[in-house]
Amino acid sequence: MTSLEQSTTTASHGLASEQFAPVRELFDSMLSADPGYSAQLSVYLNGSQVVGLVGGPDSAADSITGVFSCSKGVAALAFSLLVQDGLINLDATVATYWPEFARNGKATITVRQLLSHQAGLVGVQGGFAMEEYNDLPAVADRLAALAPMWRPGSGIFGYHALTMGVFLEELCRRVTGERLQDVYNRRIREPYAASMFLGVPESEESRFRPVLFTQEPGPAFFDPHSMAGVSGNVQAGNLLGMPNLRSIRAEGSTSGAGVGSADGLARVYAGAITGIDGLPAYLTPETVALMSQEQVWGLDRVFCDTSAFAITFMKSHPRMDFGSAQAFGHEGANASLGYADPLYGVGFGYVPAWNEEGTTSGRAMQLSAAVRKAILG
Amino acid sequence: MTSLEQSTTTASHGLASEQFAPVRELFDSMLSADPGYSAQLSVYLNGSQVVGLVGGPDSAADSITGVFSCSKGVAALAFSLLVQDGLINLDATVATYWPEFARNGKATITVRQLLSHQAGLVGVQGGFAMEEYNDLPAVADRLAALAPMWRPGSGIFGYHALTMGVFLEELCRRVTGERLQDVYNRRIREPYAASMFLGVPESEESRFRPVLFTQEPGPAFFDPHSMAGVSGNVQAGNLLGMPNLRSIRAEGSTSGAGVGSADGLARVYAGAITGIDGLPAYLTPETVALMSQEQVWGLDRVFCDTSAFAITFMKSHPRMDFGSAQAFGHEGANASLGYADPLYGVGFGYVPAWNEEGTTSGRAMQLSAAVRKAILG
Amino acid sequence: MTSLEQSTTTASHGLASEQFAPVRELFDSMLSADPGYSAQLSVYLNGSQVVGLVGGPDSAADSITGVFSCSKGVAALAFSLLVQDGLINLDATVATYWPEFARNGKATITVRQLLSHQAGLVGVQGGFAMEEYNDLPAVADRLAALAPMWRPGSGIFGYHALTMGVFLEELCRRVTGERLQDVYNRRIREPYAASMFLGVPESEESRFRPVLFTQEPGPAFFDPHSMAGVSGNVQAGNLLGMPNLRSIRAEGSTSGAGVGSADGLARVYAGAITGIDGLPAYLTPETVALMSQEQVWGLDRVFCDTSAFAITFMKSHPRMDFGSAQAFGHEGANASLGYADPLYGVGFGYVPAWNEEGTTSGRAMQLSAAVRKAILG
Repeated sequence: MTSLEQSTTTASHGLASEQFAPVRELFDSMLSADPGYSAQLSVYLNGSQVVGLVGGPDSAADSITGVFSCSKGVAALAFSLLVQDGLINLDATVATYWPEFARNGKATITVRQLLSHQAGLVGVQGGFAMEEYNDLPAVADRLAALAPMWRPGSGIFGYHALTMGVFLEELCRRVTGERLQDVYNRRIREPYAASMFLGVPESEESRFRPVLFTQEPGPAFFDPHSMAGVSGNVQAGNLLGMPNLRSIRAEGSTSGAGVGSADGLARVYAGAITGIDGLPAYLTPETVALMSQEQVWGLDRVFCDTSAFAITFMKSHPRMDFGSAQAFGHEGANASLGYADPLYGVGFGYVPAWNEEGTTSGRAMQLSAAVRKAILG
Repeated sequence: MTSLEQSTTTASHGLASEQFAPVRELFDSMLSADPGYSAQLSVYLNGSQVVGLVGGPDSAADSITGVFSCSKGVAALAFSLLVQDGLINLDATVATYWPEFARNGKATITVRQLLSHQAGLVGVQGGFAMEEYNDLPAVADRLAALAPMWRPGSGIFGYHALTMGVFLEELCRRVTGERLQDVYNRRIREPYAASMFLGVPESEESRFRPVLFTQEPGPAFFDPHSMAGVSGNVQAGNLLGMPNLRSIRAEGSTSGAGVGSADGLARVYAGAITGIDGLPAYLTPETVALMSQEQVWGLDRVFCDTSAFAITFMKSHPRMDFGSAQAFGHEGANASLGYADPLYGVGFGYVPAWNEEGTTSGRAMQLSAAVRKAILG
Repeated sequence: MTSLEQSTTTASHGLASEQFAPVRELFDSMLSADPGYSAQLSVYLNGSQVVGLVGGPDSAADSITGVFSCSKGVAALAFSLLVQDGLINLDATVATYWPEFARNGKATITVRQLLSHQAGLVGVQGGFAMEEYNDLPAVADRLAALAPMWRPGSGIFGYHALTMGVFLEELCRRVTGERLQDVYNRRIREPYAASMFLGVPESEESRFRPVLFTQEPGPAFFDPHSMAGVSGNVQAGNLLGMPNLRSIRAEGSTSGAGVGSADGLARVYAGAITGIDGLPAYLTPETVALMSQEQVWGLDRVFCDTSAFAITFMKSHPRMDFGSAQAFGHEGANASLGYADPLYGVGFGYVPAWNEEGTTSGRAMQLSAAVRKAILG
């Protein structure tokens, strides 16, 4: 067998400009090393696509699949427009826009604190029922009635895995009367032609590929009422299969039910900072600076590991090493990744078919490093 | 030898309702695995005892022994009554009640900060002499004169191993004129018939079993003037033997000189949230919420490891994984553990005869997990 | 070969009083164990030198070499005089003294925050050019124009490796019209006859020994635009060789271009707290308390490891275990170390010829522990 034959069975398909040939080589080496590995990768540099690759048996160039918490980053891009429009002031209290939120010791919590995982509202006692995922205004009512799990303003923060999207959506509803998904569709997804859906229309269903996942053995006992258990709503069962339910992905809860392609992710992030294909950036540099400024860093109370968050967006740090100090984005539970890096002029999207490790050693981080290395030359 | 014979030599004695048979099995397996292991375990569910076990050569059903910093949790239960009575406002400055405390940059420290290990008063230069442990008002005077070891309000916190009880007791003295131990005896220990003593009366001495301990080799050099050294008063020698001194356990300093049984611990915690044996809960849900709200989380400055504290109480977190997000309690240096978990309706007490590891892998945490698993069904 | 012969080839030269014989033994054992190892050690106790040792082929009794970030500690000693003189109020905003600093969201940043690594100004986009290291007022202008890398006041802190000295120097210039180096020379270095230079005069050049270093392989990709990359100005190349450039050590940037001997370090620290050789301490206990109070502790955003800082000074903690809770000082990149410990009455300096690990297992920390053990007796 010649090396060419080998390469035809394991190599990626698609685009990589000459400057980014090392990125393609790295991606191909990942495909060669693991025959089941399948993923999409898309990179924009200064508004033009420079990498658009797909490989492996379970991903196609135009397929879309669940990107989990990458949805939060996409929702935060849409929310940024509300901040840019002056509809939301990050330093106002949440109750300014959502009076019912003031109850139970939450009157002084600011939008900034709420959207940087500091409010201590990671879930509800006893968990959410599956059907509640499709009635987020009712979930918002439940959360507005709660006391925080820790003292607001103490500096404690913990990942609001399933409630962050509820907050973004409810605030949008309060100040615009619209769903955040509708704002997103009208102002970002449609004009920028991004295959990244917060609510998959029926018309796009044929492109959907079910999320593939292996269940890793958890701890001997995982208390559903612990902070991590409540945050992950573990008693509702495994979340990894949720986007495979039509009702879940049709509703497109922005905490984690978004569905898209790597290119969709790359386009919405590149559109935010550089514009794409001749369209201007939809966020100003001032809005980007405001939304991407790091708010919290340290040991996340829910994960009990290091995290760094801006306003909803994840920031790059050694355990999640995806960009420069200016980069902002979000990872998903299956290790999908979307981010913008204003310093490099990059919009980046990565979507694997199977869940994988998402931290520094992960493929998305390696591919991101290869992209940056190629730009630095 | 039959399995029955085996079981008679290693099995526990006492009560475990059918629902909690797996808890007994786990406890029995611990006893079987280590012939020297001896401990008591007691669990109340919704106000009634469901587990009351003892096993091993060095623990008896009615024995009491040192429970070290579990004393802090018991003292905090009594202190909660002062808060409930409106005698103490957590957001007032300490100096409101204790004017001498205002010196040396401490005028703005609140009760909330002081009682969540944020005041930076972990001990005194040169350490306390042994006899000072029996004159805590004088120790309070020494502490009131100090400058904080770190900037108050900076968010830094570190375990106040030997001074937390001094603060609780002094504040009680200031607002009631009484010893906190007397408040505890009158309002908790006596009405709830709990074998948990902050000051062992002569009449209970016959039940006392000395604390048994193995000395683990420490680091090559442990600076008595480092934060950890000052906090542990290491130059006074090993603290593990202290409850074995009659004078120490008679005085019952609430930082760590309490003596009790597993059942004593379980009763005071169950009494706080559900009441027991027909007696009502002595704390209101509002007081429980106030006192058990997490105040600090992260790397403890003294331990240099993760800790989470409410008002004096420890909160459950991955390194100390004893309950739901609502649970509150305290561990002791010998790995004894007492806590209440309002979500599960549980009061829990565990007292080993020998010191052991107290963290996630520890027996108390495993037994707590088994209890919760049994309740979840 | 007799043991005496062995010892003549590997033993240290110089002074160690009888009380500190174990320190000499430890230092000798380090020299024996590694023939290339070379270092100086100097210790003052209550104002008199008790240890003054040198050993190995690459260090001489009167040699001076780069001490890297130990320079920050030395600069902070000089800055302490400005605070003591009432020229600087730690709780004033930086903009009080440096109006241009107020731009871009920095108007409320206090001197205290700036000098405890909380301002998020760890470097500039694209890095500093080498020549900028010799024009720090221009660097100060660049930094004054920046937006913070994280939200000021959030409690986030990260090591300002190359900018801390710029801040100390600019504030000095603003309130005195002088260079901080000149204040240092006139009020500390000259009167206390300390071979510790923030700017090496031509006359001392003959004593200079180049910094010797081994380059450790870094990570596969180290993004120069990440926080750690910006903080270390990695695109300017390896910093370890910088003091070997005459222009750099002549300018003596206080972030890291100081050059000195172990004795020089020990003298400036001992001079601060106890005075030396009959000269009084140049700082009052009140100034020492103010400047050495711990301000931040936890996971450093740049290092992603534990750090504890006072006003510029490092504080002792388990990963950097050099003294009592009152100790304050600074380590350098080559593992040189200078500190004062008021509780022990110690001024300490250690300068190795080759770079080495600087944390708890490091030689400086072991030697510090031996000194303290000898004092405790």
